[in-house]
Amino acid sequence: MTPTILFSAGAERFDIYAAPLEDALRRAGLTPHLVTEAAPEAVDYIVVAPGSGISDFRPYTRCKAVLSLWAGVERIVGNPTLSQPLCRMVDTALEAGMVEYVTGHVLRHHLGMDRFINRPLAGWDATVPPLASERPVAMLGLGALGLACARALTGLGFPVLGWSRSPRAVDDIACHHGVEGLSEVLARAQIAVTLLPLTPQTENLLDAAAMARMPQGAVLINPGRGALIDDDALLAALDAGHLGHATLDVFRTEPLPDDHPFRSHPRVTVTPHIAAATRPETAAGVIAENVRRGEAGVPFLHLVDRARGY
Amino acid sequence: MTPTILFSAGAERFDIYAAPLEDALRRAGLTPHLVTEAAPEAVDYIVVAPGSGISDFRPYTRCKAVLSLWAGVERIVGNPTLSQPLCRMVDTALEAGMVEYVTGHVLRHHLGMDRFINRPLAGWDATVPPLASERPVAMLGLGALGLACARALTGLGFPVLGWSRSPRAVDDIACHHGVEGLSEVLARAQIAVTLLPLTPQTENLLDAAAMARMPQGAVLINPGRGALIDDDALLAALDAGHLGHATLDVFRTEPLPDDHPFRSHPRVTVTPHIAAATRPETAAGVIAENVRRGEAGVPFLHLVDRARGY
Repeated sequence: MTPTILFSAGAERFDIYAAPLEDALRRAGLTPHLVTEAAPEAVDYIVVAPGSGISDFRPYTRCKAVLSLWAGVERIVGNPTLSQPLCRMVDTALEAGMVEYVTGHVLRHHLGMDRFINRPLAGWDATVPPLASERPVAMLGLGALGLACARALTGLGFPVLGWSRSPRAVDDIACHHGVEGLSEVLARAQIAVTLLPLTPQTENLLDAAAMARMPQGAVLINPGRGALIDDDALLAALDAGHLGHATLDVFRTEPLPDDHPFRSHPRVTVTPHIAAATRPETAAGVIAENVRRGEAGVPFLHLVDRARGY
Repeated sequence: MTPTILFSAGAERFDIYAAPLEDALRRAGLTPHLVTEAAPEAVDYIVVAPGSGISDFRPYTRCKAVLSLWAGVERIVGNPTLSQPLCRMVDTALEAGMVEYVTGHVLRHHLGMDRFINRPLAGWDATVPPLASERPVAMLGLGALGLACARALTGLGFPVLGWSRSPRAVDDIACHHGVEGLSEVLARAQIAVTLLPLTPQTENLLDAAAMARMPQGAVLINPGRGALIDDDALLAALDAGHLGHATLDVFRTEPLPDDHPFRSHPRVTVTPHIAAATRPETAAGVIAENVRRGEAGVPFLHLVDRARGY
């Protein structure tokens, strides 16, 4: 089988992805035919990333699936011309990176590390932090990434309060849901991590009212999507001393503008969208597996529910 | 049974420990008789901490065991008047705290967090760190604390190189030992954690030659004992740019003198001996269990091997 795969995720990414993708397609029993340009009606699969350049999917009449290299699909899912199945990236390496970022920054805030970093130690205040078992952490979002992070934090002893918009049942994580569940979880969390997909329902989920529910001094960690948080409400909550700190990896505009107040705010840590990245070797395997499934007539992995938006 | 227990670990600690110890003794089926002063010949057990004030243990002729509130016993084990059995503290809360400190600071260095903390972010260098699976960590010391940390790091995906002075066999950790093993482990470790007991054999184990074995830019984390590391050799290795950073929780003199170069060195993070603390609730249970064992004629837990020194 030699399906034609249009790589529409930028020339720079093609240089990185072409070889791993061809390898992965061969391992999946397919003959790689990877192109960066093709007549739309000759294309069997499209690999996309945000800003890929395709705005009209209608001419791709033979296309069996649009395969995203990114986990977040909010920039493509609402495209009214997209009638083909859309699949998200669920990459084990991206998941591993996210778990490391989230556990690292949760431990950083839990241990109060910042008072020792990039500054000389004055005095000798040997106050020992509480144990993780005494520090409830809210995990907002219980998809693949949120669950992996929740499990790693549980393994380190943190009581994890899981939350998702609709009910979830997971054996090893306490799951809450809906508007009332969110209030309850936020009221108990000393650290809250936002790993939700961005949808009309989750935009500005962390608004002034939600932040007001959190305990005095609570910390927000957002490696999900910038627009989950109301920026002005966050700055107000930090300035008022209600929230203790925010560590943010994602923003409404990226790169974050040089004059954005987050960059220099003493209670904000900005990381430049580095929490987790799709890695070509593992992501190529996910793409190839979905092409194999499409050719074999087997259901796709990580198919996006267009109504939910993720 | 009403053994007389002399609490010789300072008045301040007595205020904290008296109630939990009495509770724990009752739960162990004993009548608590906890005192801060007693005729030496009337004492059945002594609870000690460094600087407890007892320098001559010979008058305690009836004493069945000396029970340390601390894990490290190097300040008492060499006391030539001590003929009674000496037991170390192995406290689950101390272990939990140590695991949190070690995993937190390993992740901090692994993720390169310091470039984002306590400083405004300039530019937008979105270089993603490697995965934990690509970052070998050496765990020097495979006692209760070292093994617990090694297992937590393994759980997060780090390849852990374990090392102890004498051979150890542990199912889930790659164990190395002896002088040659140390060279091999240090040569491969991008981050090395020292959790060894302080003995004549481990003093200055991390000297100039050992540091020279480590890869360029390697990081040292010492939550064990200050004298495991040659301070001048460390400063020289950092100033030469051979080692990337040192995060130190323990020192030859504590509190660390105000003018000590570690306090203001840009490549040194000083934490004031807060990595792990014995917690009264859990430690009291360990003390009470050893008193129960002494009264029942059962072997003590965590008995110190006086020849090895731990």
